[in-house]
Amino acid sequence: MTMELYPRERLGLVRDATARAGLGAVLLTPGADLRYVTGYDAQELERLTCLVVPSDGEAFLVVPRLELPAAQASPAGALGVEMVACDETDDPYALVASRLPKGVAKVGVADRMWAVMALRFRAALPGAEQIAAGGVLRDLRMRKSPAEVAALREAGAAIDRVHRRVPDYLKAGRTEREVGRDIAEAITAEGHAQVDFVIVGSGPNGANPHAELTDRVIRPGEPVVVDIGGTMPSGYCSDSTRNYCVGEPPAAYRAYYEVLEAAQRASCEAVRPGTTPEAVDAAARDVIAAAGYGEHFFHRTGHGIGLESHEDPYIVEGNLEPLEPGMAFSIEPGIYPGPHGARIEDIVVCTKDGHEPMNTTHHTLTIIS
Amino acid sequence: MTMELYPRERLGLVRDATARAGLGAVLLTPGADLRYVTGYDAQELERLTCLVVPSDGEAFLVVPRLELPAAQASPAGALGVEMVACDETDDPYALVASRLPKGVAKVGVADRMWAVMALRFRAALPGAEQIAAGGVLRDLRMRKSPAEVAALREAGAAIDRVHRRVPDYLKAGRTEREVGRDIAEAITAEGHAQVDFVIVGSGPNGANPHAELTDRVIRPGEPVVVDIGGTMPSGYCSDSTRNYCVGEPPAAYRAYYEVLEAAQRASCEAVRPGTTPEAVDAAARDVIAAAGYGEHFFHRTGHGIGLESHEDPYIVEGNLEPLEPGMAFSIEPGIYPGPHGARIEDIVVCTKDGHEPMNTTHHTLTIIS
Repeated sequence: MTMELYPRERLGLVRDATARAGLGAVLLTPGADLRYVTGYDAQELERLTCLVVPSDGEAFLVVPRLELPAAQASPAGALGVEMVACDETDDPYALVASRLPKGVAKVGVADRMWAVMALRFRAALPGAEQIAAGGVLRDLRMRKSPAEVAALREAGAAIDRVHRRVPDYLKAGRTEREVGRDIAEAITAEGHAQVDFVIVGSGPNGANPHAELTDRVIRPGEPVVVDIGGTMPSGYCSDSTRNYCVGEPPAAYRAYYEVLEAAQRASCEAVRPGTTPEAVDAAARDVIAAAGYGEHFFHRTGHGIGLESHEDPYIVEGNLEPLEPGMAFSIEPGIYPGPHGARIEDIVVCTKDGHEPMNTTHHTLTIIS
Repeated sequence: MTMELYPRERLGLVRDATARAGLGAVLLTPGADLRYVTGYDAQELERLTCLVVPSDGEAFLVVPRLELPAAQASPAGALGVEMVACDETDDPYALVASRLPKGVAKVGVADRMWAVMALRFRAALPGAEQIAAGGVLRDLRMRKSPAEVAALREAGAAIDRVHRRVPDYLKAGRTEREVGRDIAEAITAEGHAQVDFVIVGSGPNGANPHAELTDRVIRPGEPVVVDIGGTMPSGYCSDSTRNYCVGEPPAAYRAYYEVLEAAQRASCEAVRPGTTPEAVDAAARDVIAAAGYGEHFFHRTGHGIGLESHEDPYIVEGNLEPLEPGMAFSIEPGIYPGPHGARIEDIVVCTKDGHEPMNTTHHTLTIIS
């Protein structure tokens, strides 16, 4: 078993999946799918960069001439994929079409390809039905290899180190924005290549799961939800939520925080091969509902994570696709009764008989004195 | 004339343009178009956020319930646009379809809408042909209002302040990456909300217009191309390239640098209403070719800039759409003979009788002692 993060054989697996899906080719523009297949972390530009993986033939990478050195220096260079450089006045869409079999009936387009590019491909390949390529790649991407799990473990350890530093930043009298700026710096200082998001939801803002940073001053006795994540140089993402309070929180908060801890634990413990995401969601939801807080938990329990911070599988009612070893996702129930709220979030990976947490900082409310 | 950056009347202008283009509606997901129309800087998420602007009817914003507070707090909240919140298990695509006229024949989709969303819309609106909405909005977006030009001026001043600090960071013995990290910090310290790119191309890397930061150590006498940009809190972007050398550069470099200065000046001076982008491109290219360096200038002369760092109009051979007052774009010829290269880049705005530069730092090679 390879321990390479971007193994050479992946291109062949994608070609096989493309053939099985009945597609003539998949067209992968810059983004997670292209990186997954080749290791190339290409920039999203108005000039077309596109890996073409025909179901029957050799893959090739169409690349603007200006980007050729970066593409060659990337891991894609070592794969031996043919690179076709386009000049400013070339039509790269026509070029791709000219190299695909005439009358190709179906092609896959990267889920996050810009619509304007998908429409250009539609014009260049007028007979070809377009399908979201994510469906072709998701079976591969959803089951993380040991090397990918190691990359997620490294990302989890990095964001855990940031959480351990939060008490240094979070003080009564500071604003959410000031605290958030310090946390963002710590995210890169602790090894991430990029900050993806920083939520510092103090008091009533903690009752808004997707609160943005504000100039609100944090006061003593106010619970604060800190939900943070970034992307590592490996390409893999971190995401973890912990709860803090400067001084003693209100008694009502203490009451539901205990429920939340139990719910998050129950959901993690429900993770094993064969269980459905819906059941993992229900495990948290049932504990919260039984304690009378059901209406205050109004989002799904989690989302998959890997090269994207939100990807398959989603831990949500209605998702009945059984979990398998290597699937990685967040478990992040919340209770938001106002005028405050709480959420506990770990990334976990499904193992052959349970789960492995990628985040290992304690779940207890951190009281900052 | 309003000096608001995101004026209320824009929504009506977009509705009119939608009707003129023969579209039943435009569908704008998070990105520059949505921000241009509403001021809402929405996050790109797997859950659909979409402003629907029907050609005949009231616009509405479909938004995940979790994002509703952010949408309401954004400038879109003040526009009085109806916001339709979707729960986790709702189908927002079906919802949009149900509110459009039955049998709508054509819809515009945001240029950067994710393909997976455009395909979901195609399934929900099976009879509707999709068109890139950028074509509908570009006539508006390409002609900057006085408020937009003021925002670009502010962005230009901010990146100019960063260039003035570059000699503090760029020293022989430091790596490109070290220098780049300091520059990135300065970009935010000087008022940008976000760093978009940092190129520090030393020696041979300066001959690669899109060089990435490397661990290469900068040595005395090596010219360095510094091409940097970011996005301001206003949403508007900066982008400027200057050239530096620790100590004296080679004589061959001095020779072509003079040609480059003259070429960049000639191109700026060619800017006026009625001139074509192709002619502005040729103005630089002719000077460089006449001096014998033609083959070493192998990219277009510039790109439009505004809410995106690359947008219409492109200053390239074949673009014959005459310039008009308010059009904003880069003028950035380069000469890359190796083993070094140079590029000079300013953002300029076409005025009623010429151009106004957004960048005002000198063009001369900066010698760092």
